[in-house]
Amino acid sequence: MGATHLAGPVLVVGTGLLGTSIGLGLSRLGLSVLLSDTSPTAQQVAQDIGAGTIHVPGSSPEPTLVVVAAPPDVTAATVSRALRDHPAATVVDIASVKSSILRALQADPELGEADLARYVGTHPMAGREKSGPAAARGELFTAMPWVICAHAGSAQDSVRIAGSLAIDLGATVHRLDAADHDAAVALVSHFPQIASSLLASRLMNAPAHALALAGNGLRDTTRIAASDPRLWIQILSHNAPELVGILHGLREDLNRLIGTLENPQGPGALLDLAELMGEGNAGQARIPGKHGAPPQAFAVVTVIVDDKPGQIARLLTDVGEVGVNLEDLRMEHSSGHQVGMVELSVLPGRSVELTEALMERSWKVVQ
Amino acid sequence: MGATHLAGPVLVVGTGLLGTSIGLGLSRLGLSVLLSDTSPTAQQVAQDIGAGTIHVPGSSPEPTLVVVAAPPDVTAATVSRALRDHPAATVVDIASVKSSILRALQADPELGEADLARYVGTHPMAGREKSGPAAARGELFTAMPWVICAHAGSAQDSVRIAGSLAIDLGATVHRLDAADHDAAVALVSHFPQIASSLLASRLMNAPAHALALAGNGLRDTTRIAASDPRLWIQILSHNAPELVGILHGLREDLNRLIGTLENPQGPGALLDLAELMGEGNAGQARIPGKHGAPPQAFAVVTVIVDDKPGQIARLLTDVGEVGVNLEDLRMEHSSGHQVGMVELSVLPGRSVELTEALMERSWKVVQ
Repeated sequence: MGATHLAGPVLVVGTGLLGTSIGLGLSRLGLSVLLSDTSPTAQQVAQDIGAGTIHVPGSSPEPTLVVVAAPPDVTAATVSRALRDHPAATVVDIASVKSSILRALQADPELGEADLARYVGTHPMAGREKSGPAAARGELFTAMPWVICAHAGSAQDSVRIAGSLAIDLGATVHRLDAADHDAAVALVSHFPQIASSLLASRLMNAPAHALALAGNGLRDTTRIAASDPRLWIQILSHNAPELVGILHGLREDLNRLIGTLENPQGPGALLDLAELMGEGNAGQARIPGKHGAPPQAFAVVTVIVDDKPGQIARLLTDVGEVGVNLEDLRMEHSSGHQVGMVELSVLPGRSVELTEALMERSWKVVQ
Repeated sequence: MGATHLAGPVLVVGTGLLGTSIGLGLSRLGLSVLLSDTSPTAQQVAQDIGAGTIHVPGSSPEPTLVVVAAPPDVTAATVSRALRDHPAATVVDIASVKSSILRALQADPELGEADLARYVGTHPMAGREKSGPAAARGELFTAMPWVICAHAGSAQDSVRIAGSLAIDLGATVHRLDAADHDAAVALVSHFPQIASSLLASRLMNAPAHALALAGNGLRDTTRIAASDPRLWIQILSHNAPELVGILHGLREDLNRLIGTLENPQGPGALLDLAELMGEGNAGQARIPGKHGAPPQAFAVVTVIVDDKPGQIARLLTDVGEVGVNLEDLRMEHSSGHQVGMVELSVLPGRSVELTEALMERSWKVVQ
């Protein structure tokens, strides 16, 4: 597969979804990967699917890089142990929270400055709804952000090695310090998870006739509410201070909204609601689109298709033959139907051409 | 296009997005459609794009059905006027809230029982991010739910006509009374809108380095925060009592969560977080999937594609040739990348076959 930026051997400690995915990805690049997990079964599965070779202390070759892929609540202790066990290696972790781990390591009486210099916190922003080594895939990090959080005492060489890990696995490197990272992911990752879970939990006792009216709005807003609680309770509790600040802001907005809706004919009620909606518009508009493009920079061409094998393939073949690049695609459907709509996002300058070409080819384009 | 269940002429009062879409759809079926709007420009645009003919009181033929497609805050008055102006016609409205309109009509001193018998409230659950007659499309209601809310005094014939309108436009008929309707849409439509707007509004002042880490979780949960405030402030204020009840529940959960996160090392903190996440899992799992199938009934096959014209078409052509029906498709991408992943949802029994067939055709399937 070509040259790597990293040199092996790489020891992966923790062969869950992410650790095993890292092992798979690095092994396919030809690097020597060693695997270790407190669960003999998990490390055996990881080895069996090709993520590397089980690490045997004392007889395996000495790693140049240790990747700690343990759950957040044992990450600091595992990093500390790795720094002491492998006194020449760079040690990185990949937990979703960074400040609490760094603080624990800085307070660790068994670690000196020279040890801490070899530690770099990192956070690959990738995952799946499934967990465990069997769900791992070497391409998990392709095209995803990977945050490198060097601290004041990090050695330049170790920071470079941490970046090489991300680059070799196809991710894009973002550099932030631990505090900025934690504040950022609290806002763009942990808070949306909480909002989605809070929203979905209101559906627990909803009548079936209400759920039958569910559309894409509800489906999209609640999709991540299906995430694994075991990992998330650790993430949320480790990033609690950042989250509390955001949730206080949410509570203020919510109290204001409840006050408005308790007296919807009151003075200024409509203005209050317009403000809420307007702030939502403004916040949503700031999220970058694909390739870092400004959001909503694409034109949408909507096509009605029958729900039969090959229909969408036939449609997208025609799109490809027209030579228009597809920037995004959404399938719109509600329950109980055998037809649906496909929304094709394309560059605005191409939508008229695409619409005409598709209609010529007898597609039902919504005008 | 074949026989319709409705007989014309149909008068559409209010030629915004929905009214004009109804006019377009019915006109294409060969029905005679009359158009009326307080804005001369809006009714002219609607006529120009083929939604019908501008209504001229006194000289246009008398409608058998009047569809009031006015904003919620003037719907009751417009229905009342239509019932009196057209004493033989069935009158339906299509506003997103039903109880407040029915109450206003029942309290209207100018309407008798015989007038009210000709009124049926309805709610087509369709829309677009855009508004106005120019954004209208006759297929807007295809495969979407359309709720028919007969009241105790509705005439059977009028209820049948209201249902025919939905059926002729390709929608699926759901029958609920006004109170059940309002409670249902508060939960599955209005509350997700509020949650998404509250979430997105926290992004207004977010630093750019945080937004650069945004993934599909944030994108999905905030998509509907881009909705038009003008319509939504009316919907929210008209369904305020139902929403307040739901928001009180949200506030209780939020207060509990803030309490937990303010003391994340406290007794029971992790259990509290697990409960929040678990309730979110349970609520999300209750949302019906495509064709009313249980959610998550599909297997996902993930393929890595280059971001070039025709790549996805080529992929889906191959999927079609294998003969596997695509139940859903998601494109996974983060900002700044030229490759991406496509997730193909198929029936679980077909995923192995599809994976093998795609790999034979040299696709990079994520294992």
